[in-house]
Amino acid sequence: MARIEAVLNSIDANLEASRERLFDLLRIPSVSTDPAFTQHCARAANWLAEQLKGLGYSADVRPTPGHPIVVGHAQAKRKDAPHVLFYGHYDVQPPDPLELWESDPFAPRLAAGKDGQEIVARGASDDKGQLMTFIEACRAFEANGGLPCHVTFLFEGEEETGSPSLPGFLAEHKEELSQAGLALVCDTSMWNAHTPAITVMLRGLAQEEVIIRGPSHDLHSGMFGGPVPNPIHILGKIVGELHDDAGQVTLPGFYDGVPELPEAVAEQWRKLEFNESEFLSSLGLTCAAGETGRSVIEKIWARPTCDVNGIVGGYTGRGAKTVLPAQASAKFSFRLVGAQDAKSVLESFRNFVRARLPADAQVEFLNHGASNALQLPFGSEALSRAQRALTEEWDKEAVLAGCGGSIPIVGAFKRDLDMDALMIGFALDDDRIHSPNEKYSWTSFHKGARSWVRILDALAA
Amino acid sequence: MARIEAVLNSIDANLEASRERLFDLLRIPSVSTDPAFTQHCARAANWLAEQLKGLGYSADVRPTPGHPIVVGHAQAKRKDAPHVLFYGHYDVQPPDPLELWESDPFAPRLAAGKDGQEIVARGASDDKGQLMTFIEACRAFEANGGLPCHVTFLFEGEEETGSPSLPGFLAEHKEELSQAGLALVCDTSMWNAHTPAITVMLRGLAQEEVIIRGPSHDLHSGMFGGPVPNPIHILGKIVGELHDDAGQVTLPGFYDGVPELPEAVAEQWRKLEFNESEFLSSLGLTCAAGETGRSVIEKIWARPTCDVNGIVGGYTGRGAKTVLPAQASAKFSFRLVGAQDAKSVLESFRNFVRARLPADAQVEFLNHGASNALQLPFGSEALSRAQRALTEEWDKEAVLAGCGGSIPIVGAFKRDLDMDALMIGFALDDDRIHSPNEKYSWTSFHKGARSWVRILDALAA
Repeated sequence: MARIEAVLNSIDANLEASRERLFDLLRIPSVSTDPAFTQHCARAANWLAEQLKGLGYSADVRPTPGHPIVVGHAQAKRKDAPHVLFYGHYDVQPPDPLELWESDPFAPRLAAGKDGQEIVARGASDDKGQLMTFIEACRAFEANGGLPCHVTFLFEGEEETGSPSLPGFLAEHKEELSQAGLALVCDTSMWNAHTPAITVMLRGLAQEEVIIRGPSHDLHSGMFGGPVPNPIHILGKIVGELHDDAGQVTLPGFYDGVPELPEAVAEQWRKLEFNESEFLSSLGLTCAAGETGRSVIEKIWARPTCDVNGIVGGYTGRGAKTVLPAQASAKFSFRLVGAQDAKSVLESFRNFVRARLPADAQVEFLNHGASNALQLPFGSEALSRAQRALTEEWDKEAVLAGCGGSIPIVGAFKRDLDMDALMIGFALDDDRIHSPNEKYSWTSFHKGARSWVRILDALAA
Repeated sequence: MARIEAVLNSIDANLEASRERLFDLLRIPSVSTDPAFTQHCARAANWLAEQLKGLGYSADVRPTPGHPIVVGHAQAKRKDAPHVLFYGHYDVQPPDPLELWESDPFAPRLAAGKDGQEIVARGASDDKGQLMTFIEACRAFEANGGLPCHVTFLFEGEEETGSPSLPGFLAEHKEELSQAGLALVCDTSMWNAHTPAITVMLRGLAQEEVIIRGPSHDLHSGMFGGPVPNPIHILGKIVGELHDDAGQVTLPGFYDGVPELPEAVAEQWRKLEFNESEFLSSLGLTCAAGETGRSVIEKIWARPTCDVNGIVGGYTGRGAKTVLPAQASAKFSFRLVGAQDAKSVLESFRNFVRARLPADAQVEFLNHGASNALQLPFGSEALSRAQRALTEEWDKEAVLAGCGGSIPIVGAFKRDLDMDALMIGFALDDDRIHSPNEKYSWTSFHKGARSWVRILDALAA
């Protein structure tokens, strides 16, 4: 107990130097999508490797088909300590539109905000500020006798462009990277400015485009309307029958593997400060659609969905055209939870579509991906320890949150390294990531570093 | 009987001169849509007025906001003779693409075709050749004691651009034009090269665009999918529920006013040389869709339909995008028959849509027109006489045909002049109207003129 207080004090005492280091990193315009910034991405990678080396760790900058990946290794003072892999990314989104920034996006500054001081710069929140909370935690340990866990560092530079090189890199360095037993990912948000969160559920995503074809060419609806199958009607029937009146998806077997929430988690979610009316109102809505009997949070975090993301067929310009189209198409996506199997869902969907094809209609399926949900076991020891550590630092119970979307790299850790991930981040929903005047709360940065001190200590206890 | 033989003989004896006159008209490039040809439209109108004057009729070229309309009047030898209005149009489609013509589109020529000699030129079939069959019939009467009917001639020059000036013109000259009791329109086809047809049914058309709105803006389907109403789903349900399993439209009251065919007509249609398989095969189909228990011809000519002509919503580019769209829209059209009321159908449709809107969904309707079907009474005396006259000339029973589409000018005659129309034309389905190498069968031209002699004679009998 004495030692961890010393480490935490070290964070507090060296805040100004920590800020200087973060600002140095923020000054590097490491925009990954624009080739004009390639050398700046390399600079950011080198800067990070130097930081790790400065702490006495091994570190190198490894080339990939895209931007380099930094890998570092640090030993705990105890040989038998647990081994974690920390992931962050050094690349950022382009700062455009520049004219909407109140200051140079790559000239970081402190400004007053509604939750106190804020660091304003491109990448302040996504993900340089978050990444540096962890490095500063390690630095504080090194000044006080060393790390409680072995740590492998993995910093990539292509997260904002879909991490194209990461899966190949994980496969190539599987043996080296798999020495860690748990991934720590710092790229998510708190529940609110006062309440930390661990994201333990990510919905999976299965996407399939359906093209329905009828007559061999577009026809005049007067001269031919009546005996000709209309692909838009067929598609409409498919779309219309995918949900029942209770908002449930009608695909056979769709709910196989969909778990009910543990009561403790359900209870925590019920108590969250969350105003459904305000949330819906911000979307122009007055009441929640979807499955009856489920809260909005449950629907987004823990329930599967089926949505049509796009549909097109026939004439879509202004006015009217009397055409019977030869084809119509729609893009379907399924958000998956728990143990739902993406491949089985798509199989069931394709059968559902085929069963609704009248004579002479043909269907073509185009797959756009299929990934299962990721769920950290609620009973995991690491999760409990991290939750307690966060609760201690913030004096508020850390929320075990879901995330309606997917975070591909977490899927890659699970798939390629068979490694679970604790997603812990200190961003706030109003951080304006990807937008002008991106910011990171000073409290997030300060208490984020302190949080990692507590978490690493708890994991090794 | 003796006199009509003389008139018919006069047609036969003067064929070469008739051809010369038609070729003169075909040489005028009266393309209505292209301002570069405006003076040629005027030339064609003047040429027609001169033809009528040459026959001793009154005729003048009247200006409109667009191209001029020719009006002529001819007296029958008997004061109490019936009075008909003959409609044709002197304008033509542009000849493009010119490189696909085997000869100059405005240098008419005779060529050998599968049904005998053909007149090849832009406008040969649509509508100059058809129009001239009637003038040549009048000429033959004038050479043999005069017309059996009073005739008002109405030749417009904007049919190919949607007849924008015609309704105003009809309204302005209603008293003058309404002296006729029946319109004769020569702008349609025969059943086949040997079988004449009178088009007695035109389907009506009601068109309504539906825009469904859900959330106030596009949303990420991961971050928001579940509690948000998806406009594409709502639209899909509407489209999917518009037809039942028997192919019938489910709108309440939709079939009010839909008549069953008189048995004689049904019997004639059953006996038509029409190969459903070949017809469907030309559309890439193997069996007919739509209402069960109805023939293809009945479905197109005499049954109402509901079709979606276009639908669009969300992301429609390549690949996938996880968007919950704020809106989706579709263009619906209803083909109407018999006494169906277009306004009532649209009213029922809008109620049908509103009944399927969940909470928070809004709908906007955009009307794109509503016209009832046109049907010449099957028991009409003029129809029986014209049918007998055609049957006599062609030695094949004239088909009482329907037309799945609409012919706006016939609707204008009914609406603005309260005048029924007999649609009789001698075009063939393979005349390549609007396409390169347009042609008109020499037999159509020759026997077409003879047919009008018999029809005018029969109407006056």
